[in-house]
Amino acid sequence: METGQTPFIHRHVIGWGECDPAGIIYTPRVIDFVVEAIEAWYPAALGITWTEMRQSRNTGVPMVRAKCDFIKAPVPDLELFVEVRVAAIGRSSITFTVTGRDGAGDDYFRARMVSCYTDLTDVSAKEIDSDLRERMVAYQTSCNDS
Amino acid sequence: METGQTPFIHRHVIGWGECDPAGIIYTPRVIDFVVEAIEAWYPAALGITWTEMRQSRNTGVPMVRAKCDFIKAPVPDLELFVEVRVAAIGRSSITFTVTGRDGAGDDYFRARMVSCYTDLTDVSAKEIDSDLRERMVAYQTSCNDS
Amino acid sequence: METGQTPFIHRHVIGWGECDPAGIIYTPRVIDFVVEAIEAWYPAALGITWTEMRQSRNTGVPMVRAKCDFIKAPVPDLELFVEVRVAAIGRSSITFTVTGRDGAGDDYFRARMVSCYTDLTDVSAKEIDSDLRERMVAYQTSCNDS
Amino acid sequence: METGQTPFIHRHVIGWGECDPAGIIYTPRVIDFVVEAIEAWYPAALGITWTEMRQSRNTGVPMVRAKCDFIKAPVPDLELFVEVRVAAIGRSSITFTVTGRDGAGDDYFRARMVSCYTDLTDVSAKEIDSDLRERMVAYQTSCNDS
Repeated sequence: METGQTPFIHRHVIGWGECDPAGIIYTPRVIDFVVEAIEAWYPAALGITWTEMRQSRNTGVPMVRAKCDFIKAPVPDLELFVEVRVAAIGRSSITFTVTGRDGAGDDYFRARMVSCYTDLTDVSAKEIDSDLRERMVAYQTSCNDS
Repeated sequence: METGQTPFIHRHVIGWGECDPAGIIYTPRVIDFVVEAIEAWYPAALGITWTEMRQSRNTGVPMVRAKCDFIKAPVPDLELFVEVRVAAIGRSSITFTVTGRDGAGDDYFRARMVSCYTDLTDVSAKEIDSDLRERMVAYQTSCNDS
Repeated sequence: METGQTPFIHRHVIGWGECDPAGIIYTPRVIDFVVEAIEAWYPAALGITWTEMRQSRNTGVPMVRAKCDFIKAPVPDLELFVEVRVAAIGRSSITFTVTGRDGAGDDYFRARMVSCYTDLTDVSAKEIDSDLRERMVAYQTSCNDS
Repeated sequence: METGQTPFIHRHVIGWGECDPAGIIYTPRVIDFVVEAIEAWYPAALGITWTEMRQSRNTGVPMVRAKCDFIKAPVPDLELFVEVRVAAIGRSSITFTVTGRDGAGDDYFRARMVSCYTDLTDVSAKEIDSDLRERMVAYQTSCNDS
């Protein structure tokens, strides 16, 4: 994300090796794109990477629920723009909606991912730290305004 | 699947490279396990592989919808038993419920995957061939009885 | 590649899911980066993608030999610049040297990959088409001059 | 490995998603098979997994050099038998030769992988612990005798 760009967009060009003998995407790869876009969203929107969260806060944000509609099958060399929005913020859960589109604006997939703010020592849910929560809310507001 | 075993179980030992710096599964890999179990189910339950479907029927069965709850995070060397059940059979859709358990019977993930019987020339839905539909129904019945 | 940039550089930011429980790259992923850089090199340097080669020439360029030294272990969020050079052009073989560096110019890996100009009908070697050979030679010359 | 089986053989059935639009293996996946076979070799031949090595000895064995000849392209559903042999044992290096064959004994790939006994705190080479070295030598001898 360039600073200030909302919603956050993560670009991905479909690789040959991500497609299968039918010549179209091997569908599990779409979940990779969704999670990679969320990973890239953290430093862009919250100013912290997953590695920094682990090192300085002993915290991870693994997915606890995934839902995805595969609308159109991407093919090799397709340039996808994967948009990340925050749908809901709970005590320890963060819900994202992630949409993959081509340059013409056609949707290829729409996902809803629930992640959990997690203490990495015992892999248990904990309350989202207030500084990060504030930035999440700010991002959410910024997307609604745009 | 050994012949006659229902429901079909696909074994997977979690690899080191499937886990991330938090020491637990990188969640998109779970979707790989789910789809790999479904892939293995086809020859076991229907007597036909995806490659044979493509070559002899110009047909594929890509996922059109995925839903997954990640209940417990697998770690390296964990032996998982991934169970495949047929939840529903439509005109061209086949819905699977796929559950990953350890040897003690604890659930690690539960997925619901909708796949679509697809003509590979124009990547469009078509009616499930009757011979395969019969075997799907037989499998479903067999699971309900067991 | 921006037009005219030689040697071609492919950028890759190391993902969380590409690293293992030791917190460093899972080494097979490096081979992915090497081949993805070569894939991106084709349209940039030769003006043709692997998909276009398959569709218009029934040709593929699979790897037949790989050699890689893993010098330094990449960690999550590292920005890598993967440089692609043509080391040798045979009757049907194209040999690449591919080097991954960080922004400071430190080497992380150095690979030598031999690919084979391949007829996809019977998966057998064939002579490189003259128009593509010319562009390969031009690229090689351009790198030597820069 | 069944106890006492030498050399160690790791079975892998080629998945649909491991193959590319040309209908054959996406070559980087072969390196995955090679490293997965080596990972499985550790508990089978040395009685210790990579996770146990990390937890009890703060040690990893990442690859530092890979070399692979891709002889024949695997296709979906092919059952491969990946054989792991120890070629050389240095002060801190272990060199494997890994060969992938089908059921008829035809070779699909031959790799030579050098791994390094590594202290995970500073990611530096250290001398192989004597108990593991003894078992490596025993395995090597056992393979030569068989």
